[in-house]
Amino acid sequence: MSYFPNIGKINYEGAKSTNPYAFKFYNPEEKIGGKTMEEFLRFGVAYWHTFTADLSDPFGTGSAVRSWDKFSGMDAAKARVEAAFEFFEKLGVPYFCFHDVDIAPEGDSLKETYQNLDTIVAMIKDYMKDSKTKLLWNTANNFTNPRFLHGAASSNNADVFAYSAAKVKKGLEIGKELGAENYVFWGGREGYETLLNTDMKLEMDNLGRFFHMAVDYAKEIGFDAQFLIEPKPKEPTTHQYDFDVATGYAFLQHYGLQDHFKFNIEANHATLAGHTFEHELRYARVNGMLGSVDANQGDPLLGWDTDEFPTDLYSTTLAMYEIIKNGGLGRGGLNFDAKARRGSFEPEDLFHAHIAGMDAFAIGYKVAQKLIDDKVLDGVIENRYRSYTEGVGKDIVEGKTDFRKLEEHALSLNEIKHESGRLEHIKATLNQYLLRAYAE
Amino acid sequence: MSYFPNIGKINYEGAKSTNPYAFKFYNPEEKIGGKTMEEFLRFGVAYWHTFTADLSDPFGTGSAVRSWDKFSGMDAAKARVEAAFEFFEKLGVPYFCFHDVDIAPEGDSLKETYQNLDTIVAMIKDYMKDSKTKLLWNTANNFTNPRFLHGAASSNNADVFAYSAAKVKKGLEIGKELGAENYVFWGGREGYETLLNTDMKLEMDNLGRFFHMAVDYAKEIGFDAQFLIEPKPKEPTTHQYDFDVATGYAFLQHYGLQDHFKFNIEANHATLAGHTFEHELRYARVNGMLGSVDANQGDPLLGWDTDEFPTDLYSTTLAMYEIIKNGGLGRGGLNFDAKARRGSFEPEDLFHAHIAGMDAFAIGYKVAQKLIDDKVLDGVIENRYRSYTEGVGKDIVEGKTDFRKLEEHALSLNEIKHESGRLEHIKATLNQYLLRAYAE
Amino acid sequence: MSYFPNIGKINYEGAKSTNPYAFKFYNPEEKIGGKTMEEFLRFGVAYWHTFTADLSDPFGTGSAVRSWDKFSGMDAAKARVEAAFEFFEKLGVPYFCFHDVDIAPEGDSLKETYQNLDTIVAMIKDYMKDSKTKLLWNTANNFTNPRFLHGAASSNNADVFAYSAAKVKKGLEIGKELGAENYVFWGGREGYETLLNTDMKLEMDNLGRFFHMAVDYAKEIGFDAQFLIEPKPKEPTTHQYDFDVATGYAFLQHYGLQDHFKFNIEANHATLAGHTFEHELRYARVNGMLGSVDANQGDPLLGWDTDEFPTDLYSTTLAMYEIIKNGGLGRGGLNFDAKARRGSFEPEDLFHAHIAGMDAFAIGYKVAQKLIDDKVLDGVIENRYRSYTEGVGKDIVEGKTDFRKLEEHALSLNEIKHESGRLEHIKATLNQYLLRAYAE
Amino acid sequence: MSYFPNIGKINYEGAKSTNPYAFKFYNPEEKIGGKTMEEFLRFGVAYWHTFTADLSDPFGTGSAVRSWDKFSGMDAAKARVEAAFEFFEKLGVPYFCFHDVDIAPEGDSLKETYQNLDTIVAMIKDYMKDSKTKLLWNTANNFTNPRFLHGAASSNNADVFAYSAAKVKKGLEIGKELGAENYVFWGGREGYETLLNTDMKLEMDNLGRFFHMAVDYAKEIGFDAQFLIEPKPKEPTTHQYDFDVATGYAFLQHYGLQDHFKFNIEANHATLAGHTFEHELRYARVNGMLGSVDANQGDPLLGWDTDEFPTDLYSTTLAMYEIIKNGGLGRGGLNFDAKARRGSFEPEDLFHAHIAGMDAFAIGYKVAQKLIDDKVLDGVIENRYRSYTEGVGKDIVEGKTDFRKLEEHALSLNEIKHESGRLEHIKATLNQYLLRAYAE
Ligand SMILES: [Co+2]
Ligand SMILES: [Co+2]
Ligand SMILES: [Co+2]
Ligand SMILES: [Co+2]
Ligand SMILES: [Co+2]
Ligand SMILES: [Co+2]
Ligand SMILES: [Co+2]
Ligand SMILES: [Co+2]
Repeated sequence: MSYFPNIGKINYEGAKSTNPYAFKFYNPEEKIGGKTMEEFLRFGVAYWHTFTADLSDPFGTGSAVRSWDKFSGMDAAKARVEAAFEFFEKLGVPYFCFHDVDIAPEGDSLKETYQNLDTIVAMIKDYMKDSKTKLLWNTANNFTNPRFLHGAASSNNADVFAYSAAKVKKGLEIGKELGAENYVFWGGREGYETLLNTDMKLEMDNLGRFFHMAVDYAKEIGFDAQFLIEPKPKEPTTHQYDFDVATGYAFLQHYGLQDHFKFNIEANHATLAGHTFEHELRYARVNGMLGSVDANQGDPLLGWDTDEFPTDLYSTTLAMYEIIKNGGLGRGGLNFDAKARRGSFEPEDLFHAHIAGMDAFAIGYKVAQKLIDDKVLDGVIENRYRSYTEGVGKDIVEGKTDFRKLEEHALSLNEIKHESGRLEHIKATLNQYLLRAYAE
Repeated sequence: MSYFPNIGKINYEGAKSTNPYAFKFYNPEEKIGGKTMEEFLRFGVAYWHTFTADLSDPFGTGSAVRSWDKFSGMDAAKARVEAAFEFFEKLGVPYFCFHDVDIAPEGDSLKETYQNLDTIVAMIKDYMKDSKTKLLWNTANNFTNPRFLHGAASSNNADVFAYSAAKVKKGLEIGKELGAENYVFWGGREGYETLLNTDMKLEMDNLGRFFHMAVDYAKEIGFDAQFLIEPKPKEPTTHQYDFDVATGYAFLQHYGLQDHFKFNIEANHATLAGHTFEHELRYARVNGMLGSVDANQGDPLLGWDTDEFPTDLYSTTLAMYEIIKNGGLGRGGLNFDAKARRGSFEPEDLFHAHIAGMDAFAIGYKVAQKLIDDKVLDGVIENRYRSYTEGVGKDIVEGKTDFRKLEEHALSLNEIKHESGRLEHIKATLNQYLLRAYAE
Repeated sequence: MSYFPNIGKINYEGAKSTNPYAFKFYNPEEKIGGKTMEEFLRFGVAYWHTFTADLSDPFGTGSAVRSWDKFSGMDAAKARVEAAFEFFEKLGVPYFCFHDVDIAPEGDSLKETYQNLDTIVAMIKDYMKDSKTKLLWNTANNFTNPRFLHGAASSNNADVFAYSAAKVKKGLEIGKELGAENYVFWGGREGYETLLNTDMKLEMDNLGRFFHMAVDYAKEIGFDAQFLIEPKPKEPTTHQYDFDVATGYAFLQHYGLQDHFKFNIEANHATLAGHTFEHELRYARVNGMLGSVDANQGDPLLGWDTDEFPTDLYSTTLAMYEIIKNGGLGRGGLNFDAKARRGSFEPEDLFHAHIAGMDAFAIGYKVAQKLIDDKVLDGVIENRYRSYTEGVGKDIVEGKTDFRKLEEHALSLNEIKHESGRLEHIKATLNQYLLRAYAE
Repeated sequence: MSYFPNIGKINYEGAKSTNPYAFKFYNPEEKIGGKTMEEFLRFGVAYWHTFTADLSDPFGTGSAVRSWDKFSGMDAAKARVEAAFEFFEKLGVPYFCFHDVDIAPEGDSLKETYQNLDTIVAMIKDYMKDSKTKLLWNTANNFTNPRFLHGAASSNNADVFAYSAAKVKKGLEIGKELGAENYVFWGGREGYETLLNTDMKLEMDNLGRFFHMAVDYAKEIGFDAQFLIEPKPKEPTTHQYDFDVATGYAFLQHYGLQDHFKFNIEANHATLAGHTFEHELRYARVNGMLGSVDANQGDPLLGWDTDEFPTDLYSTTLAMYEIIKNGGLGRGGLNFDAKARRGSFEPEDLFHAHIAGMDAFAIGYKVAQKLIDDKVLDGVIENRYRSYTEGVGKDIVEGKTDFRKLEEHALSLNEIKHESGRLEHIKATLNQYLLRAYAE
């Protein structure tokens, strides 16, 4: 039985193809900079948006048409696994990601929840044997159930802390069982609704303790995945403790956790925090903390997490620029934490949306590599900062100066000459590179 | 004497050119849809950003290096005219725009201001004889001088109303003298700082009266330019009366002015008001009110009017789509109400920035025309709304039904079948068209 | 049987009361400016937030504990009616409001939905006989069901237009049956997700046609309620056609509907549109379009509609200032379109929240009336605009001048003298009035 | 000679006073919680907004009427000192703050700038002898001059780094000379306009080096002021490296500077970064990094730094709550980094604005102290988090547990019982406390 009977394998057909079910730019086997697109881009499908979500919004019930929705409970969970692997294969993606509740329904007790998970995990493991698709990361959903109303590891209720710990413990075990390359922490409820009734210090301290215990347990069971924090500034809470990468980095350093974690950076979370996607990537990169990416995009005029499929080529180009500069994502990948719009409710839209996103990143990859090969931006930067390679600039960089010497230098200066930053010309060049990406 | 001695005529050299002082995509003589690019795009240079502004910002004094700044007062004003026409010619633009104070300094009295204007207007008129560059629009700056502290036509001080009227009267005469195709009203101070001390009704009524008097005077002197309101939601005031196109349209209808005005839509003002550029264009277009365009772009993460040169190809494509659908801009044009960044302070950047913007709109024009020729979006829309071409839908559109009949129809319906809006696929197609724009 | 067994009648106990279940400031019988608080404030309870909603959010399932949730289907609907009237009585509110789906579940067919509605409407009518609480307004929910995925009256599907018409037709009949004083239109789906697949003109034209048919049908059945449009800029759609009051006013004028509608202004919708609550009230008031109010507040740092209970005394004071200046709300009222936070999930919180909101508006009413009695703001305004009561200002206001005369006046002026707007002092005075509100 | 001849000493007259030139709530000698208001609030006047700024905005030239503006150059600088000390005395403030360029004009060379500074610093020192007003902090303005176009310590030009170092060196010497209690770093240009031409790592490394040199030099000269970083997310740059307190804290930890710096938190910068003022204060406080405060407020609907005088009593109350909980501000203070509106251009408005701000903080202080005395919020928090004082919660807090033990506990749990967060009731209580502040 097929869940997507009308759709076959998605193949690369090139930019002129008018086949909606073909890649126009993503050619998995094409090599760029020594690696194939598939190897370097490491695309992942998000289980929740693709197989579990119903496209409801705060003012509307679900609109998604999914053939597995005729089942319920564990039957639906099993059908989703079948559908998922059919989808992975047809799309040809190397990775997928899930929260515990995406793959198996919660039971009436934690024990029953565990049993449900065990059943589905075994089934997934079985499917993985015959599939090239691997688990990029898994995580525990500690935010949907009203149990997490006042937080999970930052709850005011110690029982909830314990419950959250149990769920993450199980998550780590599942990750190990399925060979996950990373384990993600997104603290959807780890923040506050109002400071008026919140003990911020205790909550952050507890969060720190929780992460240390997670690190210890992973070590204990020999699960060597990369741990990742996914920052988000707000929504559902008014204010989340992992507001953005910098905030998360302050937290990790404060609690002595910086060697155990990197960041999973989501484009839409970046913009909600007032940053560009590339800013968050750059900041993480230069601090050695870039782990993985939730590849999506937001609507800058909307104030909530729209989690759109990424199609903005400026964004994919600048993201890929950072990723190439980072030497790739290591164990991380490009996970489509993105949902088709409520109006794009047909199962076919799941393919359209992923094709759109994969093509967009393939283009971005190509353009970014070309920019790097031609030293377009690097050349600008090398020239702009050349004063730090000699004289007083060199002394500064090498730590060989102080305020007295610098003052002496300053007093000796005539008018300081600046050069234009040439932003408009750089942007025009970027457009030129973008348009020539396919032509050449 | 040349003000831009190192730069010659900017020519079209094609997408592969690496000459920074060449157009890569804007080919003025290339015909698209029956018109040359030059005829259809009707580019204009904004005098204020290009020849008068010093690139200061709220935390920094001016950084612009301009060779005419060695002069002052009327000498500087004259040098600017010379520089401007040199610039227009080298760039090959068909239009320019100005505020009164851009071209001539205010005098110690209104009379002296008039004299200064007369001198420069005569000089401009003279230059225009030998130039192909025409005046797209002029306007009166009724916001910079502290005189307009509490508003211009909406000032609490009747003397300021009168002074503003005098300046617009002069502006209309200048427009007539120089053959302006439009006259623009941007109400930079026509709004409020706080409602607490504001008589909103009186201020809006006075604004209505002011516009009527302007219409009357233009008629009286036989100046038949298109009158344009340029909406902006805020900045410098807390709240401007012409918040966006819809607000302006409500105002015009309320005061019986809707037949005398259209809108001059600025991209960055659109986004500051919470709309996309294309939304404002579309809304104006379908209401028959699209007059002209201030072609720039904002930074969606910044809350002020950055007036960047337009380089976002999505934005230029969707803008050109609306403009083509509008049958062009009529007497309007694409005025670069845009400034080089503070860091792009060299005179060369004025060329780089305009080239970037002109190329970006040329691409947008090409892509939009191709989308229209291939009925990419029109086909989608025709199909999506087909239910209004027959049966109950046709009755609705033709006004042949009522709630009783519609209820009867509704009661007879089985489950309503929807079709996907296919947004992700449409966006992927847009990317495909964008990348193929130059290749083909 | 009681649904709120632990809570008795909420009485006014004064500002020193420490009884959480008492009004500290809202004294229904206290007269201010000739009317009792109850008569003037006309508070209404929103059925949806109070009796139907479960406090779910986009990342969490419902947390609300409601004793009627042990029932389901029509039993739950009936229990809600009982709970509602118990709540209305204990709170002592004169009004309530509902959408059709709040009071009765949708059936398997429109016919069954009608039957469900008829049953509950009859029950409500019965309860109203013994209650002082009246129906402020009702409305049709044409947004939650996936049927309205692509819009209701602005749907691309004519069947949906018809279905929406049927629901509004029924709504008008219900309004008549229950003596509603107003009928509200909030176009939750009357907008677009993307312009790329949207025929904006057809959609707006259809919306205009729909409103005309509604006006006609109400007239036909003799339902003389005030029709109200409730603007909102976005959410759930990317862009709603009734963005704000000004946009709605442009629409009404364009389609010749301005004499049949006023506006229902929601505070949180105002801020989402980039306006203060008081701006929207003022704009509607001076255009004669202020109908009713959805009394809530938003979080200015969050980009979605939080619909918080109103507690900001600055906001309630400035809102009441506009309402008093409007001569009251006429047939409108102050409907608490507000929900307790997800963390405030206990039934008691429904009382706390309404008490908080009613007290906040009672204070605002008192402070605003005192500001008006003492001519605090009116005095400022009278003085600031005094130049329009004589000379050239009087001529302007009376339409006795033109640009020629005004120029003559301007040329005769010496330096224009301005006076400070004194905003900081006015704000300090506002604080002084606020703090003295209770003391005196 | 007097610069404010019409205004005498501002005295406390109580809440009923109608004298605009009197404090209604700030009573410097009144003791709250063991300290006088003057001792605890430690108000400071910002030299730049009060004596140097001209109230220009990006669309308008200066409107301020200042009697010392009849002078120019060093004469104006000297007149400002005289005016400042007259103002300090009449207002009765204990502190003031300045940037180098506020007090003395830049000369034609750095040397001349030094000389100008020396002259004015000597004059200020002289005035301070007879004044109770002390220097809260000083700082170097490394952002206004075009020299800092591309940054100061983060400039691409090593000469600018050196120049900036010289200015800060001089600033530290001036701070020592005048007995400043703090030294502030606001990195107005320490950020980027675009990542496209920016070496973020080098720039941040250089910033780290710069701060270390500043620490070293202050130690060398025995200047023991508290060093403070003032975060701001953007404006004038697109993105500043000290985005918010958390970002600054990540930076300080990364570069080993956390023991040498605290934060100077500005309310308007907090909101521009997407945080409430109280969030930034709380976050700094619980991390031991709360140093000083720039007391102002922003307009949440405007996207730029409006630097309004603080009058929102909710904000001043919650700010004072954090400050009291912090045990006061230590060497820090409440500096009014606030400007009268452009429309409030008269010299009298400087008094009105400061009175408004001082009264607002006096009220906030009183309300916050009462909330603390009555354990209004502390009681809520103590009760909410009580589960961490025993059993599994105590083990968590004391580090005596791990994921295995917590899982065991979780598996043993029945349904977890939550309690309402009672936000609405807390907010109503806050209103009650606010209104009773003056009455009692
Ligand atoms: Co994500
Ligand atoms: Co997201
Ligand atoms: Co413009
Ligand atoms: Co602009
Ligand atoms: Co509402
Ligand atoms: Co709402
Ligand atoms: Co500040
Ligand atoms: Co500021």
